[in-house]
Amino acid sequence: MKVLVLNGPNLNLLGQREPEVYGKTTLADIESMLQTRAKSLSAKLEFRQSNHEGELVGWIQSAPDQFNVVILNAGAYTHTSVALRDAIAATSVPTIEVHLSNIYAREEFRHKSLCAPVCKGQISGFGAFSYVLALEAACNLKVT
Amino acid sequence: MKVLVLNGPNLNLLGQREPEVYGKTTLADIESMLQTRAKSLSAKLEFRQSNHEGELVGWIQSAPDQFNVVILNAGAYTHTSVALRDAIAATSVPTIEVHLSNIYAREEFRHKSLCAPVCKGQISGFGAFSYVLALEAACNLKVT
Amino acid sequence: MKVLVLNGPNLNLLGQREPEVYGKTTLADIESMLQTRAKSLSAKLEFRQSNHEGELVGWIQSAPDQFNVVILNAGAYTHTSVALRDAIAATSVPTIEVHLSNIYAREEFRHKSLCAPVCKGQISGFGAFSYVLALEAACNLKVT
Amino acid sequence: MKVLVLNGPNLNLLGQREPEVYGKTTLADIESMLQTRAKSLSAKLEFRQSNHEGELVGWIQSAPDQFNVVILNAGAYTHTSVALRDAIAATSVPTIEVHLSNIYAREEFRHKSLCAPVCKGQISGFGAFSYVLALEAACNLKVT
Amino acid sequence: MKVLVLNGPNLNLLGQREPEVYGKTTLADIESMLQTRAKSLSAKLEFRQSNHEGELVGWIQSAPDQFNVVILNAGAYTHTSVALRDAIAATSVPTIEVHLSNIYAREEFRHKSLCAPVCKGQISGFGAFSYVLALEAACNLKVT
Amino acid sequence: MKVLVLNGPNLNLLGQREPEVYGKTTLADIESMLQTRAKSLSAKLEFRQSNHEGELVGWIQSAPDQFNVVILNAGAYTHTSVALRDAIAATSVPTIEVHLSNIYAREEFRHKSLCAPVCKGQISGFGAFSYVLALEAACNLKVT
Amino acid sequence: MKVLVLNGPNLNLLGQREPEVYGKTTLADIESMLQTRAKSLSAKLEFRQSNHEGELVGWIQSAPDQFNVVILNAGAYTHTSVALRDAIAATSVPTIEVHLSNIYAREEFRHKSLCAPVCKGQISGFGAFSYVLALEAACNLKVT
Amino acid sequence: MKVLVLNGPNLNLLGQREPEVYGKTTLADIESMLQTRAKSLSAKLEFRQSNHEGELVGWIQSAPDQFNVVILNAGAYTHTSVALRDAIAATSVPTIEVHLSNIYAREEFRHKSLCAPVCKGQISGFGAFSYVLALEAACNLKVT
Amino acid sequence: MKVLVLNGPNLNLLGQREPEVYGKTTLADIESMLQTRAKSLSAKLEFRQSNHEGELVGWIQSAPDQFNVVILNAGAYTHTSVALRDAIAATSVPTIEVHLSNIYAREEFRHKSLCAPVCKGQISGFGAFSYVLALEAACNLKVT
Amino acid sequence: MKVLVLNGPNLNLLGQREPEVYGKTTLADIESMLQTRAKSLSAKLEFRQSNHEGELVGWIQSAPDQFNVVILNAGAYTHTSVALRDAIAATSVPTIEVHLSNIYAREEFRHKSLCAPVCKGQISGFGAFSYVLALEAACNLKVT
Amino acid sequence: MKVLVLNGPNLNLLGQREPEVYGKTTLADIESMLQTRAKSLSAKLEFRQSNHEGELVGWIQSAPDQFNVVILNAGAYTHTSVALRDAIAATSVPTIEVHLSNIYAREEFRHKSLCAPVCKGQISGFGAFSYVLALEAACNLKVT
Amino acid sequence: MKVLVLNGPNLNLLGQREPEVYGKTTLADIESMLQTRAKSLSAKLEFRQSNHEGELVGWIQSAPDQFNVVILNAGAYTHTSVALRDAIAATSVPTIEVHLSNIYAREEFRHKSLCAPVCKGQISGFGAFSYVLALEAACNLKVT
Repeated sequence: MKVLVLNGPNLNLLGQREPEVYGKTTLADIESMLQTRAKSLSAKLEFRQSNHEGELVGWIQSAPDQFNVVILNAGAYTHTSVALRDAIAATSVPTIEVHLSNIYAREEFRHKSLCAPVCKGQISGFGAFSYVLALEAACNLKVT
Repeated sequence: MKVLVLNGPNLNLLGQREPEVYGKTTLADIESMLQTRAKSLSAKLEFRQSNHEGELVGWIQSAPDQFNVVILNAGAYTHTSVALRDAIAATSVPTIEVHLSNIYAREEFRHKSLCAPVCKGQISGFGAFSYVLALEAACNLKVT
Repeated sequence: MKVLVLNGPNLNLLGQREPEVYGKTTLADIESMLQTRAKSLSAKLEFRQSNHEGELVGWIQSAPDQFNVVILNAGAYTHTSVALRDAIAATSVPTIEVHLSNIYAREEFRHKSLCAPVCKGQISGFGAFSYVLALEAACNLKVT
Repeated sequence: MKVLVLNGPNLNLLGQREPEVYGKTTLADIESMLQTRAKSLSAKLEFRQSNHEGELVGWIQSAPDQFNVVILNAGAYTHTSVALRDAIAATSVPTIEVHLSNIYAREEFRHKSLCAPVCKGQISGFGAFSYVLALEAACNLKVT
Repeated sequence: MKVLVLNGPNLNLLGQREPEVYGKTTLADIESMLQTRAKSLSAKLEFRQSNHEGELVGWIQSAPDQFNVVILNAGAYTHTSVALRDAIAATSVPTIEVHLSNIYAREEFRHKSLCAPVCKGQISGFGAFSYVLALEAACNLKVT
Repeated sequence: MKVLVLNGPNLNLLGQREPEVYGKTTLADIESMLQTRAKSLSAKLEFRQSNHEGELVGWIQSAPDQFNVVILNAGAYTHTSVALRDAIAATSVPTIEVHLSNIYAREEFRHKSLCAPVCKGQISGFGAFSYVLALEAACNLKVT
Repeated sequence: MKVLVLNGPNLNLLGQREPEVYGKTTLADIESMLQTRAKSLSAKLEFRQSNHEGELVGWIQSAPDQFNVVILNAGAYTHTSVALRDAIAATSVPTIEVHLSNIYAREEFRHKSLCAPVCKGQISGFGAFSYVLALEAACNLKVT
Repeated sequence: MKVLVLNGPNLNLLGQREPEVYGKTTLADIESMLQTRAKSLSAKLEFRQSNHEGELVGWIQSAPDQFNVVILNAGAYTHTSVALRDAIAATSVPTIEVHLSNIYAREEFRHKSLCAPVCKGQISGFGAFSYVLALEAACNLKVT
Repeated sequence: MKVLVLNGPNLNLLGQREPEVYGKTTLADIESMLQTRAKSLSAKLEFRQSNHEGELVGWIQSAPDQFNVVILNAGAYTHTSVALRDAIAATSVPTIEVHLSNIYAREEFRHKSLCAPVCKGQISGFGAFSYVLALEAACNLKVT
Repeated sequence: MKVLVLNGPNLNLLGQREPEVYGKTTLADIESMLQTRAKSLSAKLEFRQSNHEGELVGWIQSAPDQFNVVILNAGAYTHTSVALRDAIAATSVPTIEVHLSNIYAREEFRHKSLCAPVCKGQISGFGAFSYVLALEAACNLKVT
Repeated sequence: MKVLVLNGPNLNLLGQREPEVYGKTTLADIESMLQTRAKSLSAKLEFRQSNHEGELVGWIQSAPDQFNVVILNAGAYTHTSVALRDAIAATSVPTIEVHLSNIYAREEFRHKSLCAPVCKGQISGFGAFSYVLALEAACNLKVT
Repeated sequence: MKVLVLNGPNLNLLGQREPEVYGKTTLADIESMLQTRAKSLSAKLEFRQSNHEGELVGWIQSAPDQFNVVILNAGAYTHTSVALRDAIAATSVPTIEVHLSNIYAREEFRHKSLCAPVCKGQISGFGAFSYVLALEAACNLKVT
């Protein structure tokens, strides 16, 4: 099981700025937590971030060459990018959508995910643990 | 960690009718799978189903007397019940929303969950494994 | 041909209150008219009413055990119950939707039936005779 | 009881083209089935089809001179013709709307009937038998 | 003057849970306050609560046998129940809608009351005193 | 000044059917009243009616060959015909829209005229006198 | 026949400012043209303008004391004033709505008149002559 | 307790015009009824009416200098005036919204009150008695 | 390859009226240009125009008897005719939609084509050359 | 450069009431700050406030007689007054719209300005300094 | 005639992945087919693809330096990119929009093209041949 | 005071292309005008442009390291980019939104700014001078 974890725009800021507000967990912390769990699940995991819609599209396009599952936190592009949706729909590996916050408890425009209808499933609201649950779900896909 | 798992209308039909279409996993199978996992997580779990909106409201109301978390698959009431939403908002225990199918890949009217904004988080699309992920999330809440 | 006729909320009031306004035909009169017609069609017919959405859901769920067709006047739940819709969609017996009044000649919110898309067909506007037509339609299904 | 049965645009194609898809029942078959039933109900029935909105309007306008009831399958004009609606509303004979298919199980724009609010009632989804039920309803109006 | 006071879903929680947030007034306190006021107005008052939509429908249906007015706080069902609306419209006793909070200062979906158009009037925003005002209004109806 | 007066679908019924409801003024009466007024204004007037959208389109197309102004009561096609709108926009003679009733005091779908934006002006609500006002307006256009 | 002609906000600017754009006809010119026509129709006419919604409301309220008809060009208040609508609905004299321009050929927000549904009729698009037509219509009301 | 009662546009017509339709109760009658009740409640009450939005805004602005509560029947301005809403929100005295009729049983555009979200509460549908209930509510605020 | 080219309402006016505005190309010119191109493509082409929705429906219905492809410029009916859409969907020959102007650069109501979803493809904005492109596309369908 | 600064409803309250909430800057302070800046820019400035829509309309109408630019904070009328919009559009002097707060960070109904499309430009969100920026912009218009 | 052909996100996947589903035609095949046709039309053609919105914007901006026409298949950006629309509108060379599939037969959100209103025309639904038609249209623009 | 001025897609074209239409002011001219003004205000200013959403996001993210204020003309991304909005909201330096044109006088889709709610304020419609006003506002923030 080889898993690609993709993070969209502004997620690189996590934990670095205003830690008293958003907490101190950085994206690096999340990656490290995931790598540990991946090992215990005998999975291999690659972790990337980009602010560019086109770069995320490219990563999803080339995922089938190296990975069995994509875990995607597309950040703001979740709500605006038909290009990401098309890339997910065109790829042969299943994609799992994750969100740190409960997007349904935020502004109206964050309730609609353009990616969700073409993903395997969606997990939102459990903070960094959302990623861990997605990894569990990814590895469970393997055995089905 | 004591967890109450609630299932809404029509979920009692799961796996019993037209198994060639919906699969053979019954609600009892899901309960059994969850009880096993609960044991390994040292959690205690109670599992209920009702077709009555009012009965589900009552169960959520009385959850704080016995449970630390509620896992809720409200089925069709997810999309129509303000009463369930109010019960969740009024209760002091966190509620985790689960769905067997990816509700965002289904009819338009299933994309809107009235409960989601007042839940801790939402997990949808992983079949019976959605419940397992919710249980993991529930137990992770404990140690936070 | 065994037919289950289900009546939703407030239909129990039919003909009992303000007969000068709504006419004198009671739900019992309708049942009696239907039993007579059923006999002449060699059909067997059971007739029930409930104000509880959950109870109606349950009756539809268990219909396949005893009946070949369901005739449903869901009353107000026609317009608000996704749970009833899901029960109809999940059951293996065809359901025929009936209405006493022409729902399209009433308030805007009564024009939309959540159940109609998963029913076999819909008959509305012929008063008590709507039920008789539905029974004819039910028995005609048999010979198709 | 003299009944005028009107059929709107494209219904002349019924059963003639692509029978493996739409079935083999032609409009002529429906007329013949209805004439038989009409005889057994001592009713007289005339059966017409037109692709022209204006011609259908004219037929409804002149219905009171010869008929007691109109049965109307306006086809596509059901959803777009205010002119038909006005003709129905202006005529002194009751009109019964029929549809072969369940229009509520089809595309969104077919869910709205402009004619329904001014018709006596509506029957949809029972194939050719929808017309038979409408004829029954028409003859039942007589004795009311 | 015999008055039936009905309370909908979750109102049984009033004052019992998180009193530091919602205040300490319980539903029992409200009943007691109302009984006192009723006495001074020479009215007789019965006070009930249910989480079941169907049960509330039934209570409204049978109100005319024993009561002159209904005071209704339908809670969440205010915004979702056509069944309650139909029961109110069908009953011969006037119904007065009350709300503890100002529903127009809350979420958008609470601004629309399905019951209001068929009630005598509506009082919202005065806390427990909303019920007292409704009782005054009810008794004033008597002398009109 | 040569004026073409066009009347759309169902206006031929005017005054002939249910005179106790719609009044006894027929379309012929309106024509006669207009011819009298036309004479006193030294105008020449032709008066036509059709239930066919295509025929009305054709009459407007050929108006410039013989007429200086068109007065149009498009009836139901007012609200549904882009074809009429295009014909009016393409013709070089000004068109004046008239309605017997005040269309803004009727059903919502009659409030929107597709023709109005490309007409010279609109007169509605004065019964048969709406046509007389339109004729006055037409003759006043001449002297401008 | 005594007629009150009311003009709303900004109509006092007519013809005074930017005559090369809006023409040179002033509100005084319109009054003078109307007074002449009123004489020939043996009518008495009073002509007023105000930029104040409340003043226009007051004038309509007191119209029945002195006038038989109101002709109203409410200008911008046509589209925003429920107060004017209520005043018109409450008054016992009929009101005729006029507009200089064809409001249906202008911005979307000018297509909706809040006053129209409670007026006798509406005339729009004939420039100053719209007022003359309204006066004709007013005097014709007299003889009906 | 000093109470300012404000009445908006057209309320001055109450009972004066068409008493056979709207009843004979005048605004003066309402004031007198309120003054009586105020005395029994040891309150002081001032009663005003205006058709001018700006004047009502001004009265609310200066209320804190002399009054403890405002009772406001803003009439048509209820549905169109953001200025009134802002004045209420800016003032330090609580405002209670009243309506004679049940605004939710009237036209769609009367269901939305711009003022309600910034008022203490709302009372509608009890005729002149709505004012009395508002006065009771106002005096009850005092003792809270 | 036998191609039927159908033109809807008002296209007969092309180039005949106001040539200084719309250009001098007539429908006859377009036909002649298409016949020349058809010859060079060894195709046979028939060219018709009608202002009648019903006639266009009929032509599409009978197309399979004589033609392999339909090229359709439905003019205004593009945006209003469900009947044309149904005829296209029911016919076994592919239909190609063309427009002279770029319909997406015109009024909002011309952006929605009811026919497009059931056509093979759509070409709009290239003037008379749109037809030539459609003919090329039609002949290319042949060799696929 | 002569500048007219207009302030709409409730702006007279600025800084006078609840200074701990809204700050202590009064409208007089703003005027004084602006007069100082005007002097340094060799501009002449007049400063007015009104709660009356009609009065603001009148001031804009008569602006060209004395002023080169209007700076307008229409307050609540920004969102509801077509009359103000028409006055601005009709006047020959440019108008600059200002707001103290960022209206796009407030309630949905404050995001839409009816005046903005006919103003030169809009400045919002800089508190009292918004006026200073508008004055700078006004004086810069002069030298263009 | 020098033509720039631009392809947006995910079009690089064409024919490479899941050929059994999407066909075997690659973007390289389309380029080759176009180059052949370009030669026969004496045109020069450059062919590019990018997943980056900003890169596509840049290519359109610099098109006037080297090309006479742009053919654009913007893929998913068709529906979301105002930046592309602005680039097209700002450039002096005409742009022709193409789509492989009939976008009007797909999901609702693909029916709206933000680019179409500023393009010369649009061709959709003919597979790879859509590009050929666009090239023909481009070369025909030359001789106009 | 160190100010970062960011310009979005297509602003690099300013003044270079079609100067007879858009004027001759280039982005370089604007920068030069701003640098001059910055000096007189003792501010330091950096000026950048990009067509890439992701690059703009990155620049805003890193602004706090070097700047006190961001002035942002996001061009087309103003209306489509949630990613920019999130970057602005996450950054600790205030952002001021500017537009050359009055975006409220342009197409409907340009009236909605996704960035505005999280910016300090917005200035639009004053051409290049909008930037100067923003710089003044930025420097005024300093002294607050």
